[in-house]
Amino acid sequence: MDFSSKLLEQAVYEMSQLPGIGKRTALRLVLHLLRQNENQTLQLAEALTNLRTGIKFCKNCHNISDTELCEICANPNREASIVCVVEDVRDVMAIENTSQYRGHYHVLGGKISPLDGVGPQDLTIQSLKEKVKSGGVEEVIFALSSTMEGDTTNFYIYRQLEEFGIKTSTIARGIAVGDELEYADEVTLGRSILHRIPFENSLKN
Amino acid sequence: MDFSSKLLEQAVYEMSQLPGIGKRTALRLVLHLLRQNENQTLQLAEALTNLRTGIKFCKNCHNISDTELCEICANPNREASIVCVVEDVRDVMAIENTSQYRGHYHVLGGKISPLDGVGPQDLTIQSLKEKVKSGGVEEVIFALSSTMEGDTTNFYIYRQLEEFGIKTSTIARGIAVGDELEYADEVTLGRSILHRIPFENSLKN
Ligand SMILES: [Zn+2]
Ligand SMILES: [Zn+2]
Repeated sequence: MDFSSKLLEQAVYEMSQLPGIGKRTALRLVLHLLRQNENQTLQLAEALTNLRTGIKFCKNCHNISDTELCEICANPNREASIVCVVEDVRDVMAIENTSQYRGHYHVLGGKISPLDGVGPQDLTIQSLKEKVKSGGVEEVIFALSSTMEGDTTNFYIYRQLEEFGIKTSTIARGIAVGDELEYADEVTLGRSILHRIPFENSLKN
Repeated sequence: MDFSSKLLEQAVYEMSQLPGIGKRTALRLVLHLLRQNENQTLQLAEALTNLRTGIKFCKNCHNISDTELCEICANPNREASIVCVVEDVRDVMAIENTSQYRGHYHVLGGKISPLDGVGPQDLTIQSLKEKVKSGGVEEVIFALSSTMEGDTTNFYIYRQLEEFGIKTSTIARGIAVGDELEYADEVTLGRSILHRIPFENSLKN
């Protein structure tokens, strides 16, 4: 692209560094900002700067937080003995939205993925191990996505925690509530039959 | 969404103000920035701020420019007597990329669209009229998109310039080079037959 302005070119370049934002989209977004009030751009720039420079991670669960201890870890009504292992803050938000979980989390910060150069040492696995080792944790729930990387990570952590003899579980996979069986993929449908639950249990919620 | 951090919430909110960026996408983009080097976020914020506060528009053609007169208007090898009327800087870039045009531009800054509250006075039409009135312009080429708004705008400008007796033209519409006739829409195909050109002319390029 042949830009008539270095300022425009630079802004489009930086915007296009974001994942899924090509040069064309970046240009469209930047031109939109130029048509809006100057404040909108300045507020966006400030919010991003404030986030990136001021962000903290909860020292207990590694969730994004504005305070040393996140709201969940700081809440005495949450059960610290149950720890749900998730990939990132989006998973925490998704599970929190269900209002079905009252335990703590442990945010790994990713999945083990040799292809992407992510090894166990790049995640917060050691911190989880120490948390379990120091006592008080009764159950660890694996809630990573069911991809090869997710399964690998689950298994790696499972082996790391084995010696402590705590309960480990994984979230149930199955047909989404309200979905038609015929449209479900075979693997999901297969697992949902294999891991069927007593009918009485399905009436509880 | 239930955010664990006000800083995160604010950044996601500002990002989601961009067109086509929902809350989910905004969150994905912001979390991506958090995983990258701090510099990437600071450079994005700075580029947007610099653009929005430092942007100039060419005093002759209203194209985005870092200088009072854009590179095209300042170039003595471009023909100032031919003026191509376009909607925004993206159209200038698209036409420049063809390397087929050596005249000047006039950037309207939009199209007349009563539904969106855009009237002739919101565009740079008066400036175009004055440019033509002051002499030196021999031809005005309309290169707006062929939508109802584009056609309305073309016709409005055409009427405004009528009194000056200059040549006006519009870019050719037709089947894209390399496209199959059978997949072309009827309107385009119809126009391309109606506005057929002498065969010899098609051999020139
Ligand atoms: Zn926490
Ligand atoms: Zn210019």
